[in-house]
Amino acid sequence: MNALVPFAAAGVGHDPGAVPTVLLALAFAIVCAKLAGELVERLGQPAVLGELIVGILAGNAALFGGPDLSALASSETLTVIAELGAVLLLFHVGLESTPKEMMAVGGRATLVAVVGVVTPMLLGFGVGELMRPRESWMLHAFLGAMLAATSVGITARVLKDADALRAPFARIILGAAVIDDVLGLVVLAVVAGIITAAGTGTAISAAAMAWIVAKALVFLIGALVVGSFISPRLFRGALALRSRGVVLALSLGFCFVLSYLALRAGLAPIVGAFAAGLVLEDVHFEGHVQRGEPPLHESLEPLTALLVPVFFIRMGMLVDLRSFASASVLGFAALLTLAAILGKLACGAVAPKGVSGLTLGLGMMPRGEVGLIFAGIGAQLVLAGRPVVDAGTYAGAVFMVVATTMLTPPLLLWSIRRT
Amino acid sequence: MNALVPFAAAGVGHDPGAVPTVLLALAFAIVCAKLAGELVERLGQPAVLGELIVGILAGNAALFGGPDLSALASSETLTVIAELGAVLLLFHVGLESTPKEMMAVGGRATLVAVVGVVTPMLLGFGVGELMRPRESWMLHAFLGAMLAATSVGITARVLKDADALRAPFARIILGAAVIDDVLGLVVLAVVAGIITAAGTGTAISAAAMAWIVAKALVFLIGALVVGSFISPRLFRGALALRSRGVVLALSLGFCFVLSYLALRAGLAPIVGAFAAGLVLEDVHFEGHVQRGEPPLHESLEPLTALLVPVFFIRMGMLVDLRSFASASVLGFAALLTLAAILGKLACGAVAPKGVSGLTLGLGMMPRGEVGLIFAGIGAQLVLAGRPVVDAGTYAGAVFMVVATTMLTPPLLLWSIRRT
Repeated sequence: MNALVPFAAAGVGHDPGAVPTVLLALAFAIVCAKLAGELVERLGQPAVLGELIVGILAGNAALFGGPDLSALASSETLTVIAELGAVLLLFHVGLESTPKEMMAVGGRATLVAVVGVVTPMLLGFGVGELMRPRESWMLHAFLGAMLAATSVGITARVLKDADALRAPFARIILGAAVIDDVLGLVVLAVVAGIITAAGTGTAISAAAMAWIVAKALVFLIGALVVGSFISPRLFRGALALRSRGVVLALSLGFCFVLSYLALRAGLAPIVGAFAAGLVLEDVHFEGHVQRGEPPLHESLEPLTALLVPVFFIRMGMLVDLRSFASASVLGFAALLTLAAILGKLACGAVAPKGVSGLTLGLGMMPRGEVGLIFAGIGAQLVLAGRPVVDAGTYAGAVFMVVATTMLTPPLLLWSIRRT
Repeated sequence: MNALVPFAAAGVGHDPGAVPTVLLALAFAIVCAKLAGELVERLGQPAVLGELIVGILAGNAALFGGPDLSALASSETLTVIAELGAVLLLFHVGLESTPKEMMAVGGRATLVAVVGVVTPMLLGFGVGELMRPRESWMLHAFLGAMLAATSVGITARVLKDADALRAPFARIILGAAVIDDVLGLVVLAVVAGIITAAGTGTAISAAAMAWIVAKALVFLIGALVVGSFISPRLFRGALALRSRGVVLALSLGFCFVLSYLALRAGLAPIVGAFAAGLVLEDVHFEGHVQRGEPPLHESLEPLTALLVPVFFIRMGMLVDLRSFASASVLGFAALLTLAAILGKLACGAVAPKGVSGLTLGLGMMPRGEVGLIFAGIGAQLVLAGRPVVDAGTYAGAVFMVVATTMLTPPLLLWSIRRT
């Protein structure tokens, strides 16, 4: 057989590199996700909470005398595999709706997204004024920006597991999350641009800002319009192919290409995957399914079963529990978290009739790794000789992300079941 | 949404790293594999040949004025994804047989493996005597060792696509390939040990050799015996779990753990995956399937559809067509290839009654990347101040690998259909 012989005895041989590590990590992820999910589901909690806890325990095993796995979570290969899991999850979620159905909630979703960006920004600014009164207003604005962006992975997973993807509130949340991604891009660009400009003495360029927004909008509209035009023709043409698995191959190809283009447009890859899911419709594959191909959502199930837990376990692994050790940080962290939660719950105020405002707000609440990315950018920005995000602020951001991410699954599921 | 914002405009932002590259590579792999497979199947050739050709064209695109993708094929992430594809393929192949059925052909498979290792070694030694008469006998022995190991991926794929996995000849080939992996380990250890000993003046250690073999055998026997004991109990116990997807999660976990242990035992990960497939039997999951779980082989189909083409396309990408440019190399390469082919066809001489000797020999023929790994090890070994495998010998080895790998799919399929 394929003898990748690690020939240690004579000191020569093939280095298997990351293969053994990834094999073990995947075995651990898929089995532990199943067991932890089962356990928390028996406690009435969503499975994804179990995966996050497994991740936190694994990532902080060194604190309990276990092995230090923190480097593993940030290894390139596991990052890519986790991101593929997120892409497939959002593709799967997107398949449950059509562009038309999303357009129908478009106005309301935009309203929800705007409220969900503006309110946390104002509250975050207020926290800055209150807790860091001697710092510049620009730093306070950055604190606000850190609270703005929603990470929809958690919510999408809870909605999917609760079989609620076709409910009106689910469409509004998902639509708002896409618009939120565009708004987050703008907010980060403007705030970071102002800070950079203040540091270097140059002016921020309105043209550069406009270009960022234009790219994102061109991608979103292009993906939906061009994609909707191409997709039925593509699959009708593919009926000429005789081999099995054509639907899965073309759909995944389409999903991966749109995810790639989203990245190139400055958006998250999962926004592209979601758009790809929206565009593809069961009716496009009807001819293939009649010939005996399995329906697309059935083929996707094993792929998401393997890869999605890797995403959520890795998200948990990135949490460093040691950053919560300092008591002085905790007051600031608690206030920041409160601002983050209230800011998104405010979305509920613009809920349409018949939709629970609480469910809407809770769905927009999780920040996932987005908040950490924002905080990381802030740590690189310098204002008056110091980083905009210092160690204490960073720890507060981590707390805010962990709290909003961990609170969402149980609260959202409770709120969905209540209504 | 999950705003992994590449905020290039202000020079800050999150580096998406390998994610965009892998997204594009996967889209390319799955779509091109389907199209090329369809094309070559219409020409009566096996789909895997199409994937290899796509890989060779992609890997050598720079020769035709295209982008240079050679670094991509050897990137860690793509290597791991490809190896996962090979692991899932051999797991799937192993599911078609049981340990009992493999034991039934065990004696014959051992005979086939021994003939398939000894004959190519003798012929390779002869090529060395003929073409490199002034070099040491140890170098000639290394040439022989390079021809010994079979890479079973290609054959397993052709057998699977031809729906022939349950035929007696298929079991003999697959069993022989496992034993071949152990023998290859021994041959490489002995030959490289002798050369290293000659270089450093130390003696090779019989104990070290025995340890290499013992580890491999302990793994193989342990995996089959312990695995067969654990597997039915594991799945019966798992009936207590209520969530869906338990069979897939536990099976993949089992497969990945055995692949990892195989690597640790000095064997290829796919040997572990094959053993895992042998051990698991449909009857173990009967209770789960009755509860509505999809059968395991159905859940594996989408996973192999995405990942297996990556393995074969990458195998093609690793071929550097420029190494065949020199005419002086081609004579040596042709003779080495002839020795490689005849050496494995000799296995046909020990075919049992009712099994085509030609099919058996052709099934053992492909060297895949194994030959290249051996050649790479030889390039690091030094004898009388020069590397055992110089540039010319390496190019010959590459030619031998490409020829045996590309010839196997069409010839094997033809031979299977003929009988």
